[in-house]
Amino acid sequence: MIKNITIIGAGNVAFHLCKAFVELGIEPKQVFVRNRSKSLPFAKMGVELVHNAAEIGNSELFILAVNDDSIADAAALLPAGDALVVHTSGSMPCEMLKDFSPNYGVFYPLQTFSLEREVDFKVIPLFIEGANPATENKLKELADLLSDSVIVSTNLDRRLLHLGAVYVSNFSNALFGIAHQILEENALSFQHLVPLMRETVEKAIVKNPLAVQTGPARRNDKETIAAQLNLLKNRPEEKEIYEMLTNYIINKYHTPKK
Amino acid sequence: MIKNITIIGAGNVAFHLCKAFVELGIEPKQVFVRNRSKSLPFAKMGVELVHNAAEIGNSELFILAVNDDSIADAAALLPAGDALVVHTSGSMPCEMLKDFSPNYGVFYPLQTFSLEREVDFKVIPLFIEGANPATENKLKELADLLSDSVIVSTNLDRRLLHLGAVYVSNFSNALFGIAHQILEENALSFQHLVPLMRETVEKAIVKNPLAVQTGPARRNDKETIAAQLNLLKNRPEEKEIYEMLTNYIINKYHTPKK
Repeated sequence: MIKNITIIGAGNVAFHLCKAFVELGIEPKQVFVRNRSKSLPFAKMGVELVHNAAEIGNSELFILAVNDDSIADAAALLPAGDALVVHTSGSMPCEMLKDFSPNYGVFYPLQTFSLEREVDFKVIPLFIEGANPATENKLKELADLLSDSVIVSTNLDRRLLHLGAVYVSNFSNALFGIAHQILEENALSFQHLVPLMRETVEKAIVKNPLAVQTGPARRNDKETIAAQLNLLKNRPEEKEIYEMLTNYIINKYHTPKK
Repeated sequence: MIKNITIIGAGNVAFHLCKAFVELGIEPKQVFVRNRSKSLPFAKMGVELVHNAAEIGNSELFILAVNDDSIADAAALLPAGDALVVHTSGSMPCEMLKDFSPNYGVFYPLQTFSLEREVDFKVIPLFIEGANPATENKLKELADLLSDSVIVSTNLDRRLLHLGAVYVSNFSNALFGIAHQILEENALSFQHLVPLMRETVEKAIVKNPLAVQTGPARRNDKETIAAQLNLLKNRPEEKEIYEMLTNYIINKYHTPKK
C-alpha cells in the first residue's frame, strides 16, 4: 500500500484530494503550492507545504492536480526516479507522463469541486489507469480507500465522460445562469426554481432523461414557444439558445398527433 | 374555507393536486376524467370519478388541471354559476376564465410532475392570483394548506417563472439526454454522472450559477474544446449545441488573462 503521497497543485482538486487523504489518516508527505496566497486552506489541515520546486522531496506517489496545460510543466519539477506519477485530468492521456517515470497513470475524480463546499469522496466516481499492471493495482488499492466507485478506464472513456460532464454540469449551469438573470432582473427569486431543479435531476437519474422530456418544445406548443421568444426579444443570445434547444427537442422528442 | 373542490383533468398535475388534497383530508368532491383509461390512479385514491361532462355537479372550486390549449374547453363544461374557477397554467392569464364565472383565478404549482414520482407539495412554490380580493383570499387560504411557499403573482411573473423553468428543467434535461446517449452508446453508464449532476444543482442553488461557472469554455481552453468537438463529429446537432453554449460561456464568463 502506498504510504507516501505528494500533491502538486493548490486548486480545488488538490484541496479536496488532500482533505480526503488526511481524513483517511494518510497525510500527504508534502503539498507543493507555488502561489503562497493559496496556502491557507492547506495550512489549516496541518500538512507540510512547500513553495519552491527544489524542496519537493522523494515520494512514492506524485499526484499532479493542476490544469491540463500545466501537467507537463508540473511533472518536470519532480525529482528524477521511478516514483508513481499521476495526473487528475479527464482529457489527457496518461502517456503524456511517460518521459518522467516508467510508472505513471491517471487518477480522475468525476466531480465539480469548490473550496467552500464539502464533498463526500466515497460517492465520487474515480477513474484510474496505470501504465502497467503493478502501477494500476497500486492506484486501485489507494483509490478504493477514497471512493466506493473506482473504475479502471481508458483515455477515450475519460474523454467521453468529461464530454458528458460538460453537458450535464457546465452547460446546465449556464442555463441556470440564464434563468437566474431573467428572474432576478424582474424581482423574482431564483430560489423559486429550486424544487424544480432538484426534481429534474432526480427524475433524469431514476428514469432516463430520454424518457422524461417535458415542456412546450416536447409538445411542440407553438403558442407558448412564441410567447416565450417574445419575452426574450431583448436578449438575442439567450433567445438563440432557446431557439436551438427548442428545435432540437421538437426534432428529437416530439411525436406529431395523428 | 373552501370545502368542495372539483378537479377537471387526469394528467400529472391533476393527479398530484388530488393526492395532496386527499392527504390533507380535503377529498375532492369529483374528479372529471374524460379518458377512462386514465382512471386507475384516481380510483385507487377512492375519489369520485366522472367521465361525462353532464355529470359534473356544483362545487365551490373548480380546478382546471389541463393543458393550456384545453383550458377554455374545460371551462365550458362546468355548470353555470359563480363558483370559483382556476387553471394551473404558468403561461395563461387568469382573465381567460372571466366569461365562465365572476370568480376566477390561477393556481400554478411550479414543479415537474410524473405519475410515478412522489412529490412533497409543502416545498413546491404555488403561484396564485384571484380576479378579486375575496377570491384571492380564498385561494390563498387553500394554497397555504398545500404549500409553505404561496406567492400572489401576476401573469407576467408566472410567464417569466415558466420561462426560467424551461431553461432549468426542459433544456437541462435535453442536455442530460445528450450525455446519456454519448455515454451509453460507448458502454459507459450515465450513472457515473449522478454525483456531478446533484452537486452542480446544489452549488448553483447555494451560491449563484453566475458565480460558479466552470469548465473548458469558462477557461477558454481551446485544446479541450477542439478535442471535444472532434468527439462530436458524427453528431451534428449535438455539436451545434456544444458550439453555441461554449461560445455563450466564453463571451459571458471568460476573462482573458492579461
